[in-house]
Amino acid sequence: MRMELQEEKVFKDPVHHSIYVQDAVVWKLINTPEFQRLRRIRQLGTSYLTFHGAEHSRFSHSLGVYEITRKIISQFERNRYADWPQEEKLLSLCASLLHDVGHGPFSHSLEQIFHIDHEQWTCEIILGDTGVNRVLREVDADFPAKVASVIRKKYVNPIVVSLVSSQLDADRMDYLLRDAYFTGVNYGTFDLDRILRVLRPYRGKIVVKESGMHAVEDYLMSRYQMYWQIYFHPVTRSSDIILRQIFRRASELFESGYSFAFMLPPIQDLLSGTIGLAHYLKLDEAMVQTTFGQWSEEPDEILADLCGRFLNRQLYKYAPLESEDNGWLQTVRQEWLQIGLHPEYHMEVDTPMDSPYDVYKPGALPDGKEKPPILLLDEQEQLTEISVKSDIIQSIAGLHRGKYYIYYPEERVLPHAHLLSSETRKKLSI
Amino acid sequence: MRMELQEEKVFKDPVHHSIYVQDAVVWKLINTPEFQRLRRIRQLGTSYLTFHGAEHSRFSHSLGVYEITRKIISQFERNRYADWPQEEKLLSLCASLLHDVGHGPFSHSLEQIFHIDHEQWTCEIILGDTGVNRVLREVDADFPAKVASVIRKKYVNPIVVSLVSSQLDADRMDYLLRDAYFTGVNYGTFDLDRILRVLRPYRGKIVVKESGMHAVEDYLMSRYQMYWQIYFHPVTRSSDIILRQIFRRASELFESGYSFAFMLPPIQDLLSGTIGLAHYLKLDEAMVQTTFGQWSEEPDEILADLCGRFLNRQLYKYAPLESEDNGWLQTVRQEWLQIGLHPEYHMEVDTPMDSPYDVYKPGALPDGKEKPPILLLDEQEQLTEISVKSDIIQSIAGLHRGKYYIYYPEERVLPHAHLLSSETRKKLSI
Amino acid sequence: MRMELQEEKVFKDPVHHSIYVQDAVVWKLINTPEFQRLRRIRQLGTSYLTFHGAEHSRFSHSLGVYEITRKIISQFERNRYADWPQEEKLLSLCASLLHDVGHGPFSHSLEQIFHIDHEQWTCEIILGDTGVNRVLREVDADFPAKVASVIRKKYVNPIVVSLVSSQLDADRMDYLLRDAYFTGVNYGTFDLDRILRVLRPYRGKIVVKESGMHAVEDYLMSRYQMYWQIYFHPVTRSSDIILRQIFRRASELFESGYSFAFMLPPIQDLLSGTIGLAHYLKLDEAMVQTTFGQWSEEPDEILADLCGRFLNRQLYKYAPLESEDNGWLQTVRQEWLQIGLHPEYHMEVDTPMDSPYDVYKPGALPDGKEKPPILLLDEQEQLTEISVKSDIIQSIAGLHRGKYYIYYPEERVLPHAHLLSSETRKKLSI
Amino acid sequence: MRMELQEEKVFKDPVHHSIYVQDAVVWKLINTPEFQRLRRIRQLGTSYLTFHGAEHSRFSHSLGVYEITRKIISQFERNRYADWPQEEKLLSLCASLLHDVGHGPFSHSLEQIFHIDHEQWTCEIILGDTGVNRVLREVDADFPAKVASVIRKKYVNPIVVSLVSSQLDADRMDYLLRDAYFTGVNYGTFDLDRILRVLRPYRGKIVVKESGMHAVEDYLMSRYQMYWQIYFHPVTRSSDIILRQIFRRASELFESGYSFAFMLPPIQDLLSGTIGLAHYLKLDEAMVQTTFGQWSEEPDEILADLCGRFLNRQLYKYAPLESEDNGWLQTVRQEWLQIGLHPEYHMEVDTPMDSPYDVYKPGALPDGKEKPPILLLDEQEQLTEISVKSDIIQSIAGLHRGKYYIYYPEERVLPHAHLLSSETRKKLSI
Repeated sequence: MRMELQEEKVFKDPVHHSIYVQDAVVWKLINTPEFQRLRRIRQLGTSYLTFHGAEHSRFSHSLGVYEITRKIISQFERNRYADWPQEEKLLSLCASLLHDVGHGPFSHSLEQIFHIDHEQWTCEIILGDTGVNRVLREVDADFPAKVASVIRKKYVNPIVVSLVSSQLDADRMDYLLRDAYFTGVNYGTFDLDRILRVLRPYRGKIVVKESGMHAVEDYLMSRYQMYWQIYFHPVTRSSDIILRQIFRRASELFESGYSFAFMLPPIQDLLSGTIGLAHYLKLDEAMVQTTFGQWSEEPDEILADLCGRFLNRQLYKYAPLESEDNGWLQTVRQEWLQIGLHPEYHMEVDTPMDSPYDVYKPGALPDGKEKPPILLLDEQEQLTEISVKSDIIQSIAGLHRGKYYIYYPEERVLPHAHLLSSETRKKLSI
Repeated sequence: MRMELQEEKVFKDPVHHSIYVQDAVVWKLINTPEFQRLRRIRQLGTSYLTFHGAEHSRFSHSLGVYEITRKIISQFERNRYADWPQEEKLLSLCASLLHDVGHGPFSHSLEQIFHIDHEQWTCEIILGDTGVNRVLREVDADFPAKVASVIRKKYVNPIVVSLVSSQLDADRMDYLLRDAYFTGVNYGTFDLDRILRVLRPYRGKIVVKESGMHAVEDYLMSRYQMYWQIYFHPVTRSSDIILRQIFRRASELFESGYSFAFMLPPIQDLLSGTIGLAHYLKLDEAMVQTTFGQWSEEPDEILADLCGRFLNRQLYKYAPLESEDNGWLQTVRQEWLQIGLHPEYHMEVDTPMDSPYDVYKPGALPDGKEKPPILLLDEQEQLTEISVKSDIIQSIAGLHRGKYYIYYPEERVLPHAHLLSSETRKKLSI
Repeated sequence: MRMELQEEKVFKDPVHHSIYVQDAVVWKLINTPEFQRLRRIRQLGTSYLTFHGAEHSRFSHSLGVYEITRKIISQFERNRYADWPQEEKLLSLCASLLHDVGHGPFSHSLEQIFHIDHEQWTCEIILGDTGVNRVLREVDADFPAKVASVIRKKYVNPIVVSLVSSQLDADRMDYLLRDAYFTGVNYGTFDLDRILRVLRPYRGKIVVKESGMHAVEDYLMSRYQMYWQIYFHPVTRSSDIILRQIFRRASELFESGYSFAFMLPPIQDLLSGTIGLAHYLKLDEAMVQTTFGQWSEEPDEILADLCGRFLNRQLYKYAPLESEDNGWLQTVRQEWLQIGLHPEYHMEVDTPMDSPYDVYKPGALPDGKEKPPILLLDEQEQLTEISVKSDIIQSIAGLHRGKYYIYYPEERVLPHAHLLSSETRKKLSI
Repeated sequence: MRMELQEEKVFKDPVHHSIYVQDAVVWKLINTPEFQRLRRIRQLGTSYLTFHGAEHSRFSHSLGVYEITRKIISQFERNRYADWPQEEKLLSLCASLLHDVGHGPFSHSLEQIFHIDHEQWTCEIILGDTGVNRVLREVDADFPAKVASVIRKKYVNPIVVSLVSSQLDADRMDYLLRDAYFTGVNYGTFDLDRILRVLRPYRGKIVVKESGMHAVEDYLMSRYQMYWQIYFHPVTRSSDIILRQIFRRASELFESGYSFAFMLPPIQDLLSGTIGLAHYLKLDEAMVQTTFGQWSEEPDEILADLCGRFLNRQLYKYAPLESEDNGWLQTVRQEWLQIGLHPEYHMEVDTPMDSPYDVYKPGALPDGKEKPPILLLDEQEQLTEISVKSDIIQSIAGLHRGKYYIYYPEERVLPHAHLLSSETRKKLSI
């Protein structure tokens, strides 16, 4: 049951100007501790170390995703499209608002190290003993399960899934605009109003009126630019590497029985792989940073050094590699040992390929991991995948010039440069 | 000695687009741990609980102040104004960059509770055993002392002080634009380019060409609007109250010998009033939030409740008062006791008057606490204080419609509403 | 009868992003020749000679006024305010769209010279034999008369008049934003969304929720700044003077029987004071400029000189006067004659006071010429005129520092400077 | 000889905020009648009939091109690049300012009809008996010839030509940003600051630092989007067709000895192909519109109808064609004759291919008509054409999905629809 607020609530938002909350359920969800916790988790992880404006939280992004979804549905309602199931409005809004509620601190980096799946945590928060669950159950006893099934892309009414999660969903539209706004670049700007105007509900899918093709091209070009210039920025990769190394080192130490001078229970559970919902909800970036501050004084030199680097932004230097170049990397490892460095920490090769971002893939993978493609609806009510009609999208869809980079602590290598091979000196430009 | 970087460094900034670093000293200062620490301190304290975009740090603000100062000096140099002492450029840039480096977490709130003076900490960081001091000393052994004397507004060359700290200084220009950008309001926008163009160095002061009067009016109107709509927003005041109450309660407990389950040394030193430079530099908002997270499970019910409120944004409700109304407040205290609340924590009266912000005061106070006024330079080289010529500034300068508000935990009062006097119910609209 | 378009039409607009047309009547009105003619009339008259971006037309402004009105009504409808008469929607939209349709070329200047009243022409276009009238009559035979009575502020339902014409009407909101956008200044920007959100229909008036007071202050401050920096810019006044002098000279010549080598019938009717609707609708700025181009080769030296000045932007120089200073002006006239200039053309004294713009007047004049004031609606449903509650508006409302300027052709005076009195040389700074 | 102004002049500009004039020569050029005439010629021809904001003039664009050139040179000077010839600054600025001074009214359309070459007129204005020539000669007797040779791309110092005219020149950068601003779309926005920062003078060319490749990609994507969404908008093509038909009809009538009731000498010279410099400089869009206003009452029905359509924006309807489809077009011509229409005026097939715009061509044509390509300069000082390194540019460079459209007067065809073949009805969707 949808209950309207007596007076709509308005959040001031830099990206959408205003965010309108009209449902009591949405208002209550925003005020749960689990949702408020998103204020303490940055949207862009360590990117603030590259772009100092990128200090915005998942809280603001989640509100933005909700607002875009609200606008899309409002357009569908205004135009009274028969293919839009009006009774799914509240479900769609709640799923949009909550889609990221399971994210932990520095999410993408930690997920790799600890094999965390934020989507699964999102569902646990929705279904478990939480404030979010209590609010959802006020609608209906089944409502939490419905929301979770939308998150898992298994809800019976596929159009709701298509609205909340696709190649052109509210999530991506918000983060491109928001990340562009807060980093201060203008690559991520596209004409949101126009895109919202050309979306149509059509036979269980959200599709795009063909006349809106150029607007979608512009959106995908924004994505392409943001991808290379923000999300894969090599300095951000460098800080991600430090972050992952910290947790890798801490795990090693923990497993070897090392006694940490400072250890909060949620971090300990994380290291031991036994973390449950209650402790997971305690994790935030404040706790991680505070822990790093304490660990920067641990006797373990590697851990202390890495934590200091992260807090004081003394990142690893990087140099581009032509290829993975395993032969030379083997040489470097030897050389590192000779000059007293730890190859397993003091060098790392990275390629943006293993990334949560992609520009556009025309086909969804059968395992459901890939989001469904963008379909154009022409005047004859035919649907065509967009890259068939747009040369420019076809050309982006195939692109993946992933560069390899080697990362290393420059100030510890330089004093020993004369001991390195000429190949190494040349490749690192030292 | 000023050393130029081989190639200028550029920071992407949402407010100024680009921030240009041309001096090696400036670049090194930015990379000190003390300056990097400003990334973990928000520019607007608890305002992010009212305006979710306001998550920007003092790091970005400090860079912005530096950049505006650089632009002003660059304009002076381009026009070769005789009254500008070129040899003071590097000093001015360093003082601008560092003017806020002594700020602690939730600065304005904690300063009140613990009688901290961030300006004094700024000078300690500049003069003490820090990375900042080491970089400054590379310029000259006297250089740290010079920078500190600019911060203290006592430097021998008054135009440098006037540039770094006045009613129209780079600090205020940056924070108005930046706070407007990140909150998403457009009250704080004024024509920075135009103002920069009409500033002139003149006989030891930075003054404004008379033709720029309207641009300055616009800037002061922005300040007036930001003052009332952002900085004094009653919801932000409510979160400030919670914050101060937490530290008040912790101090009380500490003094009474209470044994905290969780206590990091810098926080302990803060409570005991014995904090020194090394521990002060460990303080940041991550540590405060983590501490609150742990304290929300302390056995002391008041402390635990306040910490939970802060983290989960369950703030006190507020109601406007006509006046300070001491008689009625006395009644309320009695009533609070009757319904089982603690008057010293569960109600607080607040007026924005005791605030670090002001719109504009035409005259500087003799104690140097007030910043010097804005002077117009006319074609006859006469100086006139701006409110003499501008009716609109005259009218703002006198304004101070401070409202009183009473704050209280609504959800703990409502169940006992029938026990309250009708006056109380009416004044609190319950 | 209101007929919806099958699909809404969208105009791309730089100020409002999109302008939505949902009614067939509105769409047809836009496509009448009388409305299309507004494309050939600039919104800001001669201001483009001061601010080169100000080349926007009354066509775009009229669409903008319509769009703001549409948004206001849409807000009223969404909130189902009882005091808003829903049946007046189409009337309000049409009156908003057409309120400026009677403007002629360089409207404010020509109105002074030829005693034209654009409001009266607007009503003639609405009621006369025009495309506009035919479209309006399709709604209802009485509909044109209703629209005209709204324009004349005499419509029986006062809330419609209040919506279309007040101190806070869609007309002013659009022109401030639009003129700021096209000139490129940022004085005129205020938070339109916020103002639209706090407007309320209330007992036959459009009023403002008291919580919106600061947003209205901001709007009035924008008006104040635009007033002084754009609308009263002395260079624009100079081009207005040339324009009026051209028509004054042409009228003199016409009355004296001078035979013009080039004269189009609508211009002739204008000079003879006999212009009727058909010829009035032929007048546009293209015709005026073309006429000036031809007249710049007329044998009458004064007329030719003025027309050349206007087209080639060789405007009169100006100098500020302390007061009207009639004694000295008398001297100047004598001196002008001595050096072979025509005092009635080669000098002119101007003060912005006789201007179509005002910042804000708290009280409407009984003759209906003044627009009604802005009223705040508080929680007790009391109405208060805004300057009673806002010190800042009170201070603007009384302001009128009109400056006097003398304008003259500098290049014709300079060669004879030695013949002028020292007082004249000093006052003109030559 | 370059003479600095005592005080720099500043134009307020919506796109670049401020335009700075520091040279007396530039200031005087702006104030010539030939340059002021550009105020009466729109930058985007008839596009204002599609995008009502697009009323900006070539005057504002020319200032913008000058300003971007000034910024590029200023960057070169600040960095003291050896490959930049400092003595060419004034020449570059003047050529940039004047590059469009030869444009006539509705330039691209009229050039097709009357075989006008605006570049040649630009040179005539620079070299002929004009105010522009007199100002340029003040610099040096040879200076006008130098400026003209830059315009003709034949100047001895190729870097000046490369600066003023290339695939990444100030002209294109300004018009993309300006046209986007005034139409209100956001396709044309790219990061101008960043591009200016990565330009380098290098061996007689202006090239791009390789690290700026993504910024150039963004610029070319903007161009691609503006190309399809603004410059080739089918409604604009429709108004261009009407415009060309008017002049085609007028030429036919003129050649056949028709006696026009209204004819100004410059228009007559245009029709007779005998126009000289003096009359060319009288031509502007005001004169064209005024002429159309008068011609809309000519007895020749075709001419009168076309002129009325243009002024009142009653444009031809359009339908897309799969191919040029000559067979069917032949049929339509027959059908048009049967229903009393003139096939040579009442239908026209258009493809954007014959357009002054292109997205990007990697190779310059040997005849010098094509602008030189964009070269990347890598760290090894190697130059590479950008599409070799950028997949996305490679994919755009080859794109030309020109659509064919048929245009016709719908309201004159519809009444006879039953007489048309089913193929025609289907293709025109009637």
